[in-house]
Parts: sequence; structure tokens; C-alpha cells
Amino acid sequence: MRFARIATPEGLTFAVIDGEGDDHANLTAKAIKGTPYTEPEYTGKEFPLADVRLLAPTLPSKVVAIGRNYADHVQEVFQQSAEHLPPTLFLKPPTSVTGPGAPIRIPDFATKVEFEGELALIVGKPCKNVKAADWKSVIRGVTIVNDVSSRDLQFADGQWARAKGIDTFCPLGPWIETDLEKFELDNLPIKAHLTHDGVTETKQDSNSDQMIMGFGEILEFITASMTLLPGDVICTGSPAGTEAMTPGDTIAVEIPGIGVLENPVEQA
Amino acid sequence: MRFARIATPEGLTFAVIDGEGDDHANLTAKAIKGTPYTEPEYTGKEFPLADVRLLAPTLPSKVVAIGRNYADHVQEVFQQSAEHLPPTLFLKPPTSVTGPGAPIRIPDFATKVEFEGELALIVGKPCKNVKAADWKSVIRGVTIVNDVSSRDLQFADGQWARAKGIDTFCPLGPWIETDLEKFELDNLPIKAHLTHDGVTETKQDSNSDQMIMGFGEILEFITASMTLLPGDVICTGSPAGTEAMTPGDTIAVEIPGIGVLENPVEQA
Repeated sequence: MRFARIATPEGLTFAVIDGEGDDHANLTAKAIKGTPYTEPEYTGKEFPLADVRLLAPTLPSKVVAIGRNYADHVQEVFQQSAEHLPPTLFLKPPTSVTGPGAPIRIPDFATKVEFEGELALIVGKPCKNVKAADWKSVIRGVTIVNDVSSRDLQFADGQWARAKGIDTFCPLGPWIETDLEKFELDNLPIKAHLTHDGVTETKQDSNSDQMIMGFGEILEFITASMTLLPGDVICTGSPAGTEAMTPGDTIAVEIPGIGVLENPVEQA
Repeated sequence: MRFARIATPEGLTFAVIDGEGDDHANLTAKAIKGTPYTEPEYTGKEFPLADVRLLAPTLPSKVVAIGRNYADHVQEVFQQSAEHLPPTLFLKPPTSVTGPGAPIRIPDFATKVEFEGELALIVGKPCKNVKAADWKSVIRGVTIVNDVSSRDLQFADGQWARAKGIDTFCPLGPWIETDLEKFELDNLPIKAHLTHDGVTETKQDSNSDQMIMGFGEILEFITASMTLLPGDVICTGSPAGTEAMTPGDTIAVEIPGIGVLENPVEQA
């Protein structure tokens, strides 16, 4: 099942996406009464997806991210091997979250802003001290995240909260896919296509089989410290291929089976 | 005016604290209908403060903190001068927030957990791109925060999110003092008293006049990147004197004119 959050002429609502594939022309959004974290109760209102605007599919209380979880990305950003720089945990603020199609807005003091296409897990129930083997029991589904990062600020600050926490620096969507058995989560292609000056090139072209910490390990690691709540987002790390974006570009992160998360880039 | 959040036999509510001084026996909590971010509308219910439990006085969407904002603390933690390690921004998750009197719970993998007594600002209205001179216009009031930090994890991880983000590692309170003209904010004593084996010693004994970035500068710095929302917490940095706590200890952070934030320490 696919859950989205949509802006309709009648207001904002969570919805179930009806239909197959990614083509919005073939999909219908069926509004639900509550959130994606319980069985859906339909309001009876339906909208052709082409007629509404997709928003970020969750309103998280926190966005917890695993950095340095792909060896090739560690090498390209830090010029050191992942052996010396193991995965680490950081937070992006909820105010950085934005939806599919919404602009990534770059302020003038961020001079090297890169995309990072990643697979994101959406938490389904309050949980603490989750064992690795039980990770699927607390996850509602998966979606795509772009962990937008200002490399200059990241290195200048030491801490990554500002470089990765600027408003609009966490595009999320297009929807939450709840069927974790629908695809091989440990073997999912992750791609990012950058359009610059009208030319589209595939910059990230990797696979979740390259992750250093797996999903279960990530859940056990985070929840040993922090309680996770429904709607919380876990960013599972970026593979190599990240590159700077400039105003006028469009960045599309693609994970086959989930969909495409595309955002234009603007000067703030 | 002082706003608190309290647990009563009838449920949880925000309240205005009536009476002078810190002695709970002389104070009354007058329940209000909404939140502290509008003029209080009283429900008519009143409770002697001694009969209710104080909770953290805000439910923040985010806790934004300025690290390395007191030169003497930079030296004691990093063994480097603040000139080489300027103030930096980090986030603590909302799930780390706990109230006055509630235990700080130390998990077994955190082996050097220190207190950091700090002055906290509570945001009063949604804001972005605040100019330093206007900072008071977006702040609802001040309170006390203990930015509990596991030094071992802080250095092992590089990023501070886990070391400072463990559940209960953000005691906050006892209340929000809204009268910013009541005291000299730029000249406020900040103290932390650690009770270990029944002996109480004052470990932090500093003053907000030692801050590197002032309040206005902090607001301008944060809101250049992030939208702040009502209830959000800004931790303004810890002075020197931080030290490890062990289960059985009690830590009391005191800022005269605001109050005392006291928490016992337990093994998780």
C-alpha cells in the first residue's frame, strides 16, 4: 500500500494511492481520516493524482540519519577510508523537510550544496531498544530522501546540523510504500539524475547492497539511545556520486519500485 | 510571568505560576486552556504547586544548541582555544527532553556522562531571518537546560547527536520566565551543584557575560538557516566546570531569578 500526504482544493490530508506504477495520470489519491500509522479509514473523497499536489508523506518529530554508511561516499567526501571513519548518527530538523516538486532553496552563505539520494525508513510505532532481527515490526514503510548537504558549512562547522538542516534541505517522498516484501530491500538500486543547463546526467548509480550498517543494525543502534515515534524518518546513508547543484538545476532521486523524488533548485 | 507544564490528578496542562520566589510551598499553578505562546486564558482550576509535578515547560519541535560558546569550556573539553574552535550549531532530539525532578537515565554504553548547565531561550513565534537587534521580539521567555553529554560517545562519533541525544539527556525547566527585563540577561550567574555520596559541591560557577555569541547573534545565526517555531528551545552554551555524573548523584543547575533545575541520575 502507498500512503501520501496531499494538498487538495479542500485542504491537506493523508491519502492512499490507488493504481500501479509511477505515472500520476494513472493514479488516484483516496483521502483517509487519520495518519498512515493505523489501518486506513477512507473519507470517501478521491482525487486524480494529477489534480493534487504531493507533500512530504510524513510530519516527523525527528529525522535521524546515518552518515558515512557507503564506503565509496566516505572516500569521495572525506578522502579517508570507511575503516577509519565508521558510520555516525546525526539529526536533521523537521523544518528542513519538504515535499516532491518543492524547490530546494539555497541561501547565499551555502556555496557548495550537494544532493545525496537515499533510501528512508518511516517509523510506524513508538519503539526503544529494538533488536536488529525485529526491525521490520517497527517500520511502517520506505520512501526516498534527498539529504541535501552544504559541504562548505559541513566542514567549517564540524557539526553537520546547519549544513544539512537548512529549510528545504530534506526533500522526502513521493509516498510511503508499506509493502516491505515487495522488493529486495538489501538489493535496491539508488540513482540520482541531475539536470543542469537542460542536460540530464545520472550522477549516483548504486545499490543498497553497499550499505555498511544494514537496516536491522541501524534500528538497533538508534533505538539503544533514542525512542522513535510514528512518522519519524531514518535516512540510511548516501552512496557515492554526490555533486554540487546550482539554481536552475533539477535533481531527481530514483529508487525503482518506490518511485522518483524530483525537486528544482532555487536561490533563496 | 512564569509558565509551567504540570501533571495533575486530572491530567497534563500548561499553567501560570502564581506567587514569588522558588519555594514550591508558596506557589500556585493556575491551569490555562492553551499554550504559553498566547495570552493565558485561565480554566479556573488551581493547584498548590507542592501537590503537582512539574514537567518540561515546553514540547519543542526542535532543540537547537550552540556548542563551544564559552571559551573556558572549549578549553576544558577540547584542549584547544576557542579561537581555533568557534561556536557551532547542533541539535538535540525532542525525545531527549525531560522535566524537573525526572531521572537522567544513563545507558551502559555511555561511560562518561557530564552535566552542562545552560540558559535556554524559548521561541514564542514562527520566525526566519531574525536580525540580531530584534531577537527579543521572537522569544517567549527563558528557562534552564542541562545539556547532558556523553563525552566518550561525543568524541568517538565525531557528530554529537547521539552523545547529547539519548532519552532524558535534556532536562528542561522549571518554568518559562517571560519577563526578559526582570534581570540582566547578559549578566546572569549560571551554577551547577553536584551531589555525590551525600556531598554537594558547586562545579559550574560562571556568568552569561562570558558567552562568545550573544543572544541576538545566536538568533540571527540560527534563523538564517532554520525556521524556528513556538516552543522550540535554544540552548545558549555551557560554561566550564562540567564533570561526570554517576548513578545516585543529583545535579542541580541554578540561575538566580529563574530558578533551579534539579535531576537525579540513574542507571538505565
